[in-house]
Amino acid sequence: MTDRPAVLIMQPHLAPLSPFLESAYAVYRFWEHPPLEAAHDIRALVVAGEAPLDKALIERLPNLDLIACFTAGYDGIDLDWCRQRGLPVTHAPGVNHEDVADHALGLILSARRQIVSGDRDVRSGAWTAERRTITASLGGQTVGIVGLGAIGKAVAARALAFRMKVVWWGPRPKSVDWPRADSLLDLARASDILVVACRADETNRGLISREILDALGPDGLLVNVSRGQVVDEDALIAALKAGTLGQAALDVFVEEPTDPARWADVPNLVLTPHTAGATTAGVQGMLMLLMQNLQAHFAGEPLTTPVP
Amino acid sequence: MTDRPAVLIMQPHLAPLSPFLESAYAVYRFWEHPPLEAAHDIRALVVAGEAPLDKALIERLPNLDLIACFTAGYDGIDLDWCRQRGLPVTHAPGVNHEDVADHALGLILSARRQIVSGDRDVRSGAWTAERRTITASLGGQTVGIVGLGAIGKAVAARALAFRMKVVWWGPRPKSVDWPRADSLLDLARASDILVVACRADETNRGLISREILDALGPDGLLVNVSRGQVVDEDALIAALKAGTLGQAALDVFVEEPTDPARWADVPNLVLTPHTAGATTAGVQGMLMLLMQNLQAHFAGEPLTTPVP
Repeated sequence: MTDRPAVLIMQPHLAPLSPFLESAYAVYRFWEHPPLEAAHDIRALVVAGEAPLDKALIERLPNLDLIACFTAGYDGIDLDWCRQRGLPVTHAPGVNHEDVADHALGLILSARRQIVSGDRDVRSGAWTAERRTITASLGGQTVGIVGLGAIGKAVAARALAFRMKVVWWGPRPKSVDWPRADSLLDLARASDILVVACRADETNRGLISREILDALGPDGLLVNVSRGQVVDEDALIAALKAGTLGQAALDVFVEEPTDPARWADVPNLVLTPHTAGATTAGVQGMLMLLMQNLQAHFAGEPLTTPVP
Repeated sequence: MTDRPAVLIMQPHLAPLSPFLESAYAVYRFWEHPPLEAAHDIRALVVAGEAPLDKALIERLPNLDLIACFTAGYDGIDLDWCRQRGLPVTHAPGVNHEDVADHALGLILSARRQIVSGDRDVRSGAWTAERRTITASLGGQTVGIVGLGAIGKAVAARALAFRMKVVWWGPRPKSVDWPRADSLLDLARASDILVVACRADETNRGLISREILDALGPDGLLVNVSRGQVVDEDALIAALKAGTLGQAALDVFVEEPTDPARWADVPNLVLTPHTAGATTAGVQGMLMLLMQNLQAHFAGEPLTTPVP
């Protein structure tokens, strides 16, 4: 055993956490093939919550006693399985929901006001004296929000500033100012723009199905800032190609990074590389909670933000 | 003379107005080379307000007695010259300022949250497992608004919903909630994001000079939804290339359509083809005012929305 507790960072895109973690811990990086003897030292995994947990690996780490998600989401983590092993899980709630909501509005504006395609048109010379692009006004459009948690509420507040109407749906009624649709299908029917902002888990995989996309319709816009798995991606691609859905703007994908070839011939689409919550302020907040949770755990104190 | 008053549409991108105008008027289109004898019939010009007025042409139209701008802006029109000739000018105020403000926020989000470049990255395969883009949070950034008219106020209202701070500058104090900077230079120094939303005329050509861009600085973002001529475009290009200005997002250009070659090697830039005010609702509002002004003029009634 080393003097300092050892932690193992699982995903390469979390590599920038290394210098911060090295101030207090021995740090291994999974993709660098840590030495076999490290298996006995490792006390905590540092993971991206959306990545599926490597259970076979965990069973080879006899002294592991914490799963620390860097992110707010933890949909890659089988919580029951962890509980059975007495493995606590921490995450980073409440630090980036405002940034995610900002990005959702950015996706709405980019799609509806044709900013991404407009940029392409100016650069390619498609803007000519004869051709003037007319886009849809946001004012008066109805935004339907799937899941009225912290992100959903922040999206609603912004939508009002753009003179849009807000409706929402989620499994449980909430005491808020905006009307709740009777069902997700009713929400899609009532909406010009559907924003997926719910927490993802095994119960809502494929929730945004072909039926929901059909109800949103040929003028509708689907925005996803939740997780890729919540949307039936194959149905979405088919709907955009057939024109039964008007537009989509996606920050998240079933597989990440997503394969560009999958989207090459799909029209009316804005794509961002899972950046909605990845802001300077958001990352600082997540880093702070990660360090606090690790510190509390190794000091035997209550965890700062355990997964409930 | 024909039975119905004759109008001449000047710019090709206004061609879609033809069927509406033809319901009441004989319509000529400048780019179709109207017959010589039409010169005596033409009573009104229908123009895009940003296009320079063709004075030589006007002097060859003896019965012309109205310049009807389809747009809100009329910066291409030499008002003194028109006044000397007793030529009234109408325009379309107050119909698309909310849409222009929406677009300004879309440009801010597209630039700051890297939506346009993110879309490019996903499609090119630049998004890899090792590379995660971190963008700047909007929360806490200061938006400086140049010109607090209808558009500027609408930008301010939206910026607050994104937790941004608002400062503004304009030549005249106004009684509003947001602080006015002592000068444009002070505004640029205080701002993370500078939004140009003023009316353009000969007095403010090149207002956003190299000095202003330097004050906005290497982390600053310039957004222009006013007119291209208000920004010193050569200084802007030089500042972006040198990195003395962080980013720019432009809907308007000194020459429109702008030459794509001018922007090909300029970094950190979002470009849209003058679409900020060109929305379905905005265009309908502008069309209604155009028809009302023409109708009033030919009936000898007071003009609905003359340029003041």
